[in-house]
Amino acid sequence: MPNPTAAMLVIGDEILSGRTRDANMHYLAGELTKRGIDLKEVRVVSDDRGAIVAAVKALSGGYEHVFTSGGIGPTHDDITADCVAEAFGDQIDVRDDARAILQARYDASGQELNAARLRMARIPDSATLIDNPVSGAPGFTIRNVHVMAGVPSVFQAMVASVLPGLTGGAPLLSQSLRIDRGEGDIAGPLAELAEAFSDLSIGSYPFQQNGAYGANIVIRGSDGARVDAAMIRLRELFPA
Amino acid sequence: MPNPTAAMLVIGDEILSGRTRDANMHYLAGELTKRGIDLKEVRVVSDDRGAIVAAVKALSGGYEHVFTSGGIGPTHDDITADCVAEAFGDQIDVRDDARAILQARYDASGQELNAARLRMARIPDSATLIDNPVSGAPGFTIRNVHVMAGVPSVFQAMVASVLPGLTGGAPLLSQSLRIDRGEGDIAGPLAELAEAFSDLSIGSYPFQQNGAYGANIVIRGSDGARVDAAMIRLRELFPA
Repeated sequence: MPNPTAAMLVIGDEILSGRTRDANMHYLAGELTKRGIDLKEVRVVSDDRGAIVAAVKALSGGYEHVFTSGGIGPTHDDITADCVAEAFGDQIDVRDDARAILQARYDASGQELNAARLRMARIPDSATLIDNPVSGAPGFTIRNVHVMAGVPSVFQAMVASVLPGLTGGAPLLSQSLRIDRGEGDIAGPLAELAEAFSDLSIGSYPFQQNGAYGANIVIRGSDGARVDAAMIRLRELFPA
Repeated sequence: MPNPTAAMLVIGDEILSGRTRDANMHYLAGELTKRGIDLKEVRVVSDDRGAIVAAVKALSGGYEHVFTSGGIGPTHDDITADCVAEAFGDQIDVRDDARAILQARYDASGQELNAARLRMARIPDSATLIDNPVSGAPGFTIRNVHVMAGVPSVFQAMVASVLPGLTGGAPLLSQSLRIDRGEGDIAGPLAELAEAFSDLSIGSYPFQQNGAYGANIVIRGSDGARVDAAMIRLRELFPA
């Protein structure tokens, strides 16, 4: 059975303007790979209602799971929750269960649950909450879309809350070999190897270091014996 | 006149598997912002023909410029050039102008222009070449799509070759203020500020540092006097 598929939607003008470098994509990619869920696509869109709604619809229809990052805080530019509700035609308002979580949190810290903070309790009617042990305000899952915060520490905590509930696949095994030769020198034999092991994914990732070219060859598959066999052949082709 | 819009397409299994952290998105975002070209969307897809062709079609139809990164090297998994040709219904084969560039490069370094390297001279018929002063093998522009390498040093050199030829817009000016208070405390006044300066983009980017919450408020616009005025009001609202 093929592994479950997933997509990620990153919401944030600050990434598209180059002000901030996204960290959540790389984190989520690693966590999903460990669980045998194949991340097939990532989209980054701006804090724009039309763009977010369209992306949620497209990705939730195309993949088994969608993970979103960003835009669920208390400020005026946090519009993700409302956009996700709109994408599914669901109602959204402050929900009692989410409000209770926030109330307990702010009572404990002596802060006021003001109107802005209460926006973080806006949850679509049909969603289930995602636990946020870091800062309280929950994320939520609606259908196959998991809506999470953009602050990396909170995003990571929410991913840890969501993943155990998802059915994973066979973890993708990978082995890699660094070859300090230009890709042009190794491409021919490598293509033959890829053909002989067409059940595996064999990728060549070039790099440049101190003016010299090289490539990391990564062999991926769910059958460990096959990956081992391909690696042995790869080392024979390109002895160190 | 509104600024030109752009999208980026990153091609690479290694990013979706979490093996490599993408660096080109952040770089391109910063360069486009400086030139007044608005990056509106980024997509990351795997080394899959159908996924690449569909993304090229969607993005080239939706934005004024599309920049792609990755998949134009000499190995079997480098399929971007062929996919872009397919997306536009163009023919692709080894082209004399690209072959001449490679031949000169490899003659100079005493390396052989073998069959694998010759794949890097596969250029769609209607494309124009993008100069690559770093490693020789050119990128290309076809219609509104600029096809570039994934290795960051080469990607950056190609961006430098392409951008001077594009019409930019009014550079987006931005100023920011760090506020060491939780977003929930500042969201109310901030929303009023955003309403009073609705011609500007006012974003709040929360962070967590040493257990305390804060936010960077970023005010963006092309009218420097308006950005200044909004910053003055922002500092009045939240004195240090």
